[in-house]
Amino acid sequence: MHNFTATYTDQYQLTMSQIYFLNNRHNEKAIFDYFFRKNPFKGGYTIFTGLENLLDVLEEIHFSQEDINYLKKMNFDDDFLEYLRNFRFTGTIKSVKEGEIIFPTEPVMTVEGNIIELQIIETILLNIINFQSLIATKASRIRHAAGDRKLIDFGLRRAQSTGGYFASRAAYIGGFNATSNIVAGKDFDIPLAGTMAHSFIQSYDSELEAFRDFSEKYTDNCVLLVDTYDTLKSGLPNAIKVAKEMEMKGHKLKGIRLDSGDLAYLSRKARKMLDNAQLQYVQISASNQLDENLIMSLNRQEASIDLFGIGTAFITGQPDGALDGVFKLAYYNNQDRIKLSDSMAKINLPGRKEIFRFYNELGLFAGDVVCEENESNPEIMYHPFEPRKQKVIKNFKKEKIQCVCMKNGKRVEPKKSISEIVDYKNERIKLLPKEHKRFEFPHIYKVGLSKRLNEKRNNLIMQHSSKNKI
Amino acid sequence: MHNFTATYTDQYQLTMSQIYFLNNRHNEKAIFDYFFRKNPFKGGYTIFTGLENLLDVLEEIHFSQEDINYLKKMNFDDDFLEYLRNFRFTGTIKSVKEGEIIFPTEPVMTVEGNIIELQIIETILLNIINFQSLIATKASRIRHAAGDRKLIDFGLRRAQSTGGYFASRAAYIGGFNATSNIVAGKDFDIPLAGTMAHSFIQSYDSELEAFRDFSEKYTDNCVLLVDTYDTLKSGLPNAIKVAKEMEMKGHKLKGIRLDSGDLAYLSRKARKMLDNAQLQYVQISASNQLDENLIMSLNRQEASIDLFGIGTAFITGQPDGALDGVFKLAYYNNQDRIKLSDSMAKINLPGRKEIFRFYNELGLFAGDVVCEENESNPEIMYHPFEPRKQKVIKNFKKEKIQCVCMKNGKRVEPKKSISEIVDYKNERIKLLPKEHKRFEFPHIYKVGLSKRLNEKRNNLIMQHSSKNKI
Repeated sequence: MHNFTATYTDQYQLTMSQIYFLNNRHNEKAIFDYFFRKNPFKGGYTIFTGLENLLDVLEEIHFSQEDINYLKKMNFDDDFLEYLRNFRFTGTIKSVKEGEIIFPTEPVMTVEGNIIELQIIETILLNIINFQSLIATKASRIRHAAGDRKLIDFGLRRAQSTGGYFASRAAYIGGFNATSNIVAGKDFDIPLAGTMAHSFIQSYDSELEAFRDFSEKYTDNCVLLVDTYDTLKSGLPNAIKVAKEMEMKGHKLKGIRLDSGDLAYLSRKARKMLDNAQLQYVQISASNQLDENLIMSLNRQEASIDLFGIGTAFITGQPDGALDGVFKLAYYNNQDRIKLSDSMAKINLPGRKEIFRFYNELGLFAGDVVCEENESNPEIMYHPFEPRKQKVIKNFKKEKIQCVCMKNGKRVEPKKSISEIVDYKNERIKLLPKEHKRFEFPHIYKVGLSKRLNEKRNNLIMQHSSKNKI
Repeated sequence: MHNFTATYTDQYQLTMSQIYFLNNRHNEKAIFDYFFRKNPFKGGYTIFTGLENLLDVLEEIHFSQEDINYLKKMNFDDDFLEYLRNFRFTGTIKSVKEGEIIFPTEPVMTVEGNIIELQIIETILLNIINFQSLIATKASRIRHAAGDRKLIDFGLRRAQSTGGYFASRAAYIGGFNATSNIVAGKDFDIPLAGTMAHSFIQSYDSELEAFRDFSEKYTDNCVLLVDTYDTLKSGLPNAIKVAKEMEMKGHKLKGIRLDSGDLAYLSRKARKMLDNAQLQYVQISASNQLDENLIMSLNRQEASIDLFGIGTAFITGQPDGALDGVFKLAYYNNQDRIKLSDSMAKINLPGRKEIFRFYNELGLFAGDVVCEENESNPEIMYHPFEPRKQKVIKNFKKEKIQCVCMKNGKRVEPKKSISEIVDYKNERIKLLPKEHKRFEFPHIYKVGLSKRLNEKRNNLIMQHSSKNKI
């Protein structure tokens, strides 16, 4: 559906790149790290999502003739435009896998390439990964609240324009069962779901007639929307009548849908009416401004709902709206690089790095340590911002969580299917202790630095603090 | 950048459409109204945005062979798929102009066509108009806070994926001066802006060297980012040194940019340091999590800022994230149609309608009245949900605010340029009394119903309440 171009970037990336080019620095190697500073939704974790889409884009990205013509009008130099005309992404990416559970501060994706290509792709990389990780994390929270019940993405009409296309993909990775978004279903291989709107019922002279027409065609998959005129006095009695007519023909009404009113009250009432009519098999679905907190509240009220249709708050990642991921220079021209700040949390981790994940005695995730690249056995982890906090980790089982997924601009493995990504996420989220999954004040997952990385950062801070002051 | 397909819709639109088709109702005429129920951001108005993009899409939309193949796998009937293969939007749209100031409840856009085409386009219509109207309204609020100072859209990296493309357009319509988003600049004819990032400075051995290289190339448009190492002790002294070097060569440093720390304090300090160096002409720009409320707060603190770079909160339309616009059936097969609800605000306005806008004695907007289509002179307006509230309006100057922009699937006028839309918005926002523009508890703009429309709705409610109960 999209035709990404290399002009899907910020103007300053080209402004800076032109200077690198004019000073003949465009072949110098750099490393940028992707990381974020805060889990969204005051939660305890984030789901890394969007990687396969990013790799698709990077394999193809270039400046079209139209782009070059436009940039010429913007007064870029001819030599630089000639360079851009031949631009292709040729970098190497080391990343955690798509679907991995990730945490603030750790550089989960590292991109190595020439300085210009890294500047140019920064914007699209952040745009793809920040948003899909936000939505997959939201979906995972909603899955946590909904338990085993079905979750359907109804969000496209309230999505932030075409962001909805990728949101439907991220929702499925995060834990939804299906989407109403046909083009996302088609392009990303996500199951589709959808029944009827109020307009369908309004277009008939009576609700009963509308239900009948629908049930005659969709004998296996008939879900009737019951709140167009009056849920309990009209919609449900008509749905029950149609369910009985379907039974006469050997079919079964699949469900009814509530889309307004007090869902806790109406669902319990509806369940009772259906059960009294011997329609225990008819499911109740509900929609209307739902999110993880409202589903928790419906649970507490013992609402009788089998399926949730989720829209606005989820597809726009409310209340946060964005993940604060950044892409920071860590290494350039054979030197470690740092950006200073009054706040330790805003100082990046310099140099080539590796992330180890440690496991506790139950085989669950216990903490992550960011090391220098060539370290094999970090024994102590240091709190990244509070120098006095440290923890001995030498006897824990551990694994490296990143691997190279793109080399010199080409994938090193075939593209992963969405079901592989979902399986991986399911496997990994089970390994996250439940205290990190709760909504209120989740336990903070430990991410630390190895002794060597900690010292390297402290040394660089000292050097730069003296050098750059006048 | 996008290749919209008719499968950019919800599954239920096709599920319902198949029933219309099988029952030979697919040529029956319908009217759907677009309206929303609540101004975003607890504000007093909304800016109608996205219309030209919607018309572009509707002129081209169809199902591709790939779409048809996919839908065949989804078990739609062959005859229906053959119908979809030839599908084109052939409807007629009556709408307020893009850039119009609009208010809750009024049906600002009315689409007439066959029932199937209206179902299919519902999703994309809502997706485009809801989001761009949200962002243009946010941008207008930020413009209100910023007064005459420059506003630049820096949001793409934190945008909800490709939603950022359209957000940059909406921001410009709402009142921004430029964007960093190159592809949006190119496709929508928006001025571009952008300077340098921390990575550029980090890639040099010293900040001063980085500033110098940049200033030598961008002699007219050099803005230096001063917070990579230490804003007051390193960034500003180096920027002042470079400004003086530029003066020696007959150039002028355009500005400095603050991107962290206390912007009120740092901007005042920076202004003083620049002024003391006789650099009164150097502008100060600021970025870092800004929105209309923070700009108001910076104003109160007498921050010295000439230009704001705005990102996350604006590009994702926080804190709302979505405008609650809906598209509701009002007329079908020669009959007025209604959807009931316990809440009067959720009952739609039936039939063919017209909106008059009234002007007060100062020539400013005084209120809008929704009438039946053939009314020419409504004399009283009724509150839409509180039957006792009414107001006499017969001596006010008035105008119809909608016109036909698409007829039988084709535009009736050439596509409007973005500057025409911006001009129209500027002209209209000036006519909105200022009490509707304030942020805290804005005065509610009056939208009412004519006597005839009010009676029609009440009669239909009565009829349906009796008919649809068993």
